[in-house]
Amino acid sequence: MMSNFNDKLVIDSWNQNADSWITTIENNEIESRKLITNQAIVDAITSYSPDSILDIGCGEGWLTHNLTIKGIEAWGADGVDKLIKKAQLINRGKFVVASYEDIVNSNIPPTSLIKKGLFEDTQFDAAVCNFSLLGKETVDNLIHSIPSLLKNNKLLFIQTLHPIIGCGESPYIDGWREESWNCFKTEFRTAAPWYFRKLETWINLLKSAGFAILECREPINPKTKKPASIIFIAAHE
Amino acid sequence: MMSNFNDKLVIDSWNQNADSWITTIENNEIESRKLITNQAIVDAITSYSPDSILDIGCGEGWLTHNLTIKGIEAWGADGVDKLIKKAQLINRGKFVVASYEDIVNSNIPPTSLIKKGLFEDTQFDAAVCNFSLLGKETVDNLIHSIPSLLKNNKLLFIQTLHPIIGCGESPYIDGWREESWNCFKTEFRTAAPWYFRKLETWINLLKSAGFAILECREPINPKTKKPASIIFIAAHE
Repeated sequence: MMSNFNDKLVIDSWNQNADSWITTIENNEIESRKLITNQAIVDAITSYSPDSILDIGCGEGWLTHNLTIKGIEAWGADGVDKLIKKAQLINRGKFVVASYEDIVNSNIPPTSLIKKGLFEDTQFDAAVCNFSLLGKETVDNLIHSIPSLLKNNKLLFIQTLHPIIGCGESPYIDGWREESWNCFKTEFRTAAPWYFRKLETWINLLKSAGFAILECREPINPKTKKPASIIFIAAHE
Repeated sequence: MMSNFNDKLVIDSWNQNADSWITTIENNEIESRKLITNQAIVDAITSYSPDSILDIGCGEGWLTHNLTIKGIEAWGADGVDKLIKKAQLINRGKFVVASYEDIVNSNIPPTSLIKKGLFEDTQFDAAVCNFSLLGKETVDNLIHSIPSLLKNNKLLFIQTLHPIIGCGESPYIDGWREESWNCFKTEFRTAAPWYFRKLETWINLLKSAGFAILECREPINPKTKKPASIIFIAAHE
């Protein structure tokens, strides 16, 4: 079954599951986010003091909001229209519907917004992908296109499942996996495919796009005493 | 108990266990080394073609030997006299008794050897630590002293337990652990302390010593489908 997964199914599943996701976040249902990983990514970003940041795969926009109210010029981009509409309704920050393909094709921020004077620059001090790198080729292409969006210190922050936890009992090899949402209170319409990458693969991907690893953080879940996530902090050279 | 462990006990345990270790290696008893990790570290080093290398914590010298017969000027250093005597007896390469403190104090290669004309340079293209970084402060100090031993591409190769495997059921925090040798056929005289480092800690340690991470390899055990080790490849900037 898993061999049938592909990048298109990732975005399809998120379009289907957008309402359930919004409910999940509004009800603060993901304990590891509430306890650990939300604060961890905010701390990571603010410790480098970027003036502006692009939040790629921003979803309903909590991180863009959080960075905006800290005085950072924060833009949130997501390919799921429904999530951006929600973000614009409930959160501060500037939000734009843009798929990863749009970003790869340098269509972010959309020319229409620049023309309207809503956005003055096409480059950011930093980009962040917070649990939003779920695909295979789309993600590889996205990472390679991010440097063209960056200026000044050219920072990239990625928070994702820690290989220790993400791998589980499965073989430690790159490949498609399935999020069945079984541990979630809210019902989701469809299982969500995601592509597991070994640590080696993440680091090779960043290096191949010209990024140097500055840091790697492993926020620990105080209950399980295991890493709740891994955060890569990299700078384009 | 573990809180009583310290760096001195590491070297004490290895002095006590040297004979058992020699037997273990001579009988090829560590399956993961035979199947995966020996070849993995040789492949990692040869893929960067260093002309000379210092094998730090060389033990009975298999790796120094293997690199020597590939035409690399390879020196093996180890703090355990008995292991170096064995290395000089059975393996090719140049071997010297030198503790990590000797190396930190720039006493490698010993001045006496340079005077005898046995060693012409005091710097190497690369250093390798193959499952030999077992302590806490001694290892931190060692890593910081390695750059002064390096020239040209200034490469450092570290193979160590993968955090996934090394952590086991214990909390994922840095700290002393105990190797009880239970899985070994040969009897060992004393348990060996070793200091567990999170991935974050390894990368921070390398960065703090001025190394940039070039690669991270995760050789997979074909039987368990889990990483048999992690190899960090870094260059001093």
